Amino acid sequence: MSPQQGIFELGLGQNPANHQPLTPISFLAWAEEVYPDRTAVIHGDQRFTYAEFGKRCRRLASALRGRGIGKGDTVAIMSPNIPPMLEAHWGVPMTGAVLNALNFRLDAPTIAFILNHGEAKVLITDKEFSAVIKDALAELGRDITVIDIDDALAPSGELLGEMDYEAFLNEGTSDFDAGSDFWPDDEWDAICLNYTSGTTGNPKGVVYHHRGAFLNAMGNVAVWGLNQETVLIWTLPMFHCNGWCFTWAVTAVGGMHVCLRHLDTEKVFPMIRDHGVNLVCGAPIVLNMLVHAPDDHKVPFEQRVDVYTGGAAPPSTVIAGMERMGFSVVHAYGLTETYGPSTYCAWQDDWNTLELDARSQKMARQGVRCHTLFDQSVIDPETMEHVPADGETIGEVMVRSNTVMKGYLKNPTATEAAFAGGWFHTGDLGVMHPDNYIEIKDRSKDIIISGGENISSLEIEETLYKHPAVMEAAVVAKPDEKWGETPCAFVTLKPDAGEVSADEVIEFCRGHMAHFKTPKAVVFGPLPKTSTGKIQKYVLRDQVKEI
Amino acid sequence: MSPQQGIFELGLGQNPANHQPLTPISFLAWAEEVYPDRTAVIHGDQRFTYAEFGKRCRRLASALRGRGIGKGDTVAIMSPNIPPMLEAHWGVPMTGAVLNALNFRLDAPTIAFILNHGEAKVLITDKEFSAVIKDALAELGRDITVIDIDDALAPSGELLGEMDYEAFLNEGTSDFDAGSDFWPDDEWDAICLNYTSGTTGNPKGVVYHHRGAFLNAMGNVAVWGLNQETVLIWTLPMFHCNGWCFTWAVTAVGGMHVCLRHLDTEKVFPMIRDHGVNLVCGAPIVLNMLVHAPDDHKVPFEQRVDVYTGGAAPPSTVIAGMERMGFSVVHAYGLTETYGPSTYCAWQDDWNTLELDARSQKMARQGVRCHTLFDQSVIDPETMEHVPADGETIGEVMVRSNTVMKGYLKNPTATEAAFAGGWFHTGDLGVMHPDNYIEIKDRSKDIIISGGENISSLEIEETLYKHPAVMEAAVVAKPDEKWGETPCAFVTLKPDAGEVSADEVIEFCRGHMAHFKTPKAVVFGPLPKTSTGKIQKYVLRDQVKEI
Repeated sequence: MSPQQGIFELGLGQNPANHQPLTPISFLAWAEEVYPDRTAVIHGDQRFTYAEFGKRCRRLASALRGRGIGKGDTVAIMSPNIPPMLEAHWGVPMTGAVLNALNFRLDAPTIAFILNHGEAKVLITDKEFSAVIKDALAELGRDITVIDIDDALAPSGELLGEMDYEAFLNEGTSDFDAGSDFWPDDEWDAICLNYTSGTTGNPKGVVYHHRGAFLNAMGNVAVWGLNQETVLIWTLPMFHCNGWCFTWAVTAVGGMHVCLRHLDTEKVFPMIRDHGVNLVCGAPIVLNMLVHAPDDHKVPFEQRVDVYTGGAAPPSTVIAGMERMGFSVVHAYGLTETYGPSTYCAWQDDWNTLELDARSQKMARQGVRCHTLFDQSVIDPETMEHVPADGETIGEVMVRSNTVMKGYLKNPTATEAAFAGGWFHTGDLGVMHPDNYIEIKDRSKDIIISGGENISSLEIEETLYKHPAVMEAAVVAKPDEKWGETPCAFVTLKPDAGEVSADEVIEFCRGHMAHFKTPKAVVFGPLPKTSTGKIQKYVLRDQVKEI
Repeated sequence: MSPQQGIFELGLGQNPANHQPLTPISFLAWAEEVYPDRTAVIHGDQRFTYAEFGKRCRRLASALRGRGIGKGDTVAIMSPNIPPMLEAHWGVPMTGAVLNALNFRLDAPTIAFILNHGEAKVLITDKEFSAVIKDALAELGRDITVIDIDDALAPSGELLGEMDYEAFLNEGTSDFDAGSDFWPDDEWDAICLNYTSGTTGNPKGVVYHHRGAFLNAMGNVAVWGLNQETVLIWTLPMFHCNGWCFTWAVTAVGGMHVCLRHLDTEKVFPMIRDHGVNLVCGAPIVLNMLVHAPDDHKVPFEQRVDVYTGGAAPPSTVIAGMERMGFSVVHAYGLTETYGPSTYCAWQDDWNTLELDARSQKMARQGVRCHTLFDQSVIDPETMEHVPADGETIGEVMVRSNTVMKGYLKNPTATEAAFAGGWFHTGDLGVMHPDNYIEIKDRSKDIIISGGENISSLEIEETLYKHPAVMEAAVVAKPDEKWGETPCAFVTLKPDAGEVSADEVIEFCRGHMAHFKTPKAVVFGPLPKTSTGKIQKYVLRDQVKEI
């Protein structure tokens, strides 16, 4: 025995029989084997079984290989939630390449920046977005392979590329890799590249590894009890953290994907009923749209539908409205850097007896670790010490996990800053409650400092949401000579709200919170949002300077 | 950029924020954080919440560390399914040491062999087994630390060690490692050492790694939809593949462990009712005992109880009997080398309409891959080619997966043979059905070759089980001058069977299968079994020579 090796190492190394890279690619092979005849994907009149879906993914991989795409290459896609987008989640990584799913609400210069920064060699693009893509390609300054998706359900648009996606699939063969050629060399290999919108400067390219994608998908399976009866409707854009890894997770158990080009409530409710949908994911804006849909859109359904929502916590009125329609809402939290969901607000038995308001307060917290998030804490970023679990002391939410990105592409400075001290810094400020649930109080940059006092913009927003006429609200700091900053509220009223004055809203806030925290100004109108429904506070911060 | 590195590698390495070893140790920390007040373990009048259970595990780890136990050391335990056994599944690996759970039905020389071969430094032992352990310790030829478990529910026995388990826990502190000192250095580090009984020679020590234990537990979660409502009753010995990894899997979701010293049907049925048990695991012998329990033991329960059974397929009469009592049986397959369950017989919707017999035939197959088993096939071990999926061509079942052992301790020859050709050789002969379900036809050594024809002993056993008087049956080859071998049946009759002759049984077989396959001799009596309820065919093979 070598002196360096104990008895449990000697002759007990890794080999192909006992060690293989973790990768979500394995989920497709599983679903093809176990549930070949179950429906994998529904899109309009299209239905693919797992046997068919698997073949389409393999054709895509084979066709890309035929074009020389392989390890370390980037394949971009500009697509709504339709089969080619889902297929790209297997077809691209099967070749060893990296999938770069583009936010289809971005403008041409940003798309051009991303395609060049990510060094995309192929772009698969839906004709709905041809205007933006045409301009972006003109800005690229280099040629790349462009494949058009000519979806029957797409609005009109131009075909820009050299061929149609279906014809491209026919360049490949469906028996691509009966064995395991497509396995990554290493589970640390990159699988996806997702650009965060950011609030200033160019977007950052978040690089995912196979290991993290596999594990976060398994975490989704555990949190949601996903199985072959799972039917997910794609209200969440798949470009957003790869659909919070549900693209892979639903397939991992042989569940069904119901595709959706646009969130049109007139179509969504009948689809939920007709396809037996039992899982909906999305930002709070999705819940808002469902709750405030016209009554004649809201066709009833019999099954229980779980709703997983991230981002800002849904107000209690929205939770109550969803529950009345048969939805069961759970709040989650995560970032692009954490593959989407990293925490969720796990239900505790003793919440059953709480009144709606108290219950909503519990449920609005970001919660506890998903099973695959290894460590989470609220930490003082100066000292790197954990704050006490008192529900009051504010620190930065930090995580350590296999479900954290490799880093930012070509951006070592940002990568190092994000991982300083051996923790991933989320940039979100929060507290740790005594029951180990975290609650986000604000983004670092969203804290308002007025007369030396910290004011949480989130707390003011929660108060505003309690006003019966308020549909959406966002609060930002307004520079103030005397106080340094004061809170300024931007408010969208409900369609049937009637006349409401700024003074009325401020008076309402004074009745519900400390006076120094109440907004000093209220602006009415629609709120600027990102493609995923997040309110763009940086736009409001610009506006507020001109008020 | 270095010429060796693509853009997706450069500056995108592993660090503590985005990479940590996979280990089931993480499950305990999760359950403590998320469900501190839920009941983790019930044993007689004892109940521990996850907060309490976690502290006990940490005390055990701390006490072991205090005795100098650390990475690469072995801690053995001889215990029935009671809290200390479960606690050892965290307390031992938290120190970096390897858990060696002993089969409590072994004799003293075998125990002594294992303790020395595995180089155990500490033995934790329940007083029920003091007679065997005393002899084993006398044979060791060296001193080791012995800690007694003095369980209130144990039958009488001697205390052999230097102190009691509870006193030992008090040597440690419950805040052992608030951070992550206990994390393994590498997920490939050994976590457990499980000796297979084998059929000849000394037992082999199967070494598990943290990665595989984590993944197989997550696989159990996915297959069974385990969650915080899961209540498992411990009818399966925890020493058997660490309870098929359910020790870890149930904890991974905050479920409840109901402990059980002995499988006494008079106690088991009321426990199922009173504790809301909804999951039972065990060899077919467990099902047999439940089905054939006296009627007054069978108190009814209201919940649905899933039953996961491995080893030989349960006969259709047993499945039907279990279903009548409210159990839902799924057949599984695996070996010690694969961390227990590697395949399961996933239910397909179109089986709902089948008659019991046809359904039982589908259900009796070993099935498809668990979600975390990466690859499985039936392969000709000579050519290493996959056999056709025709349900007829026999080959050896082989797997490749992260849920395969590191290898056999101090046995490079056996390890290399097991992994020859990059696959783990199970030694089981089977077929691949067209629907991708595998079916075991026999152990390699259980095939009977009669007049040059292969006869599956399993097929004869299945026929025997259809005879209304037969409770258990096993068939082995009997050397024969003319035919080479002929099948010899060993049969246990049901208690109320009355008189049945060998001729009657042979005649019954001739009515149900090809004549050349029918047994030429029938021996009545109890069957020799391993501690996990597997029939010991090697004992029968010895007996048959004397017939």
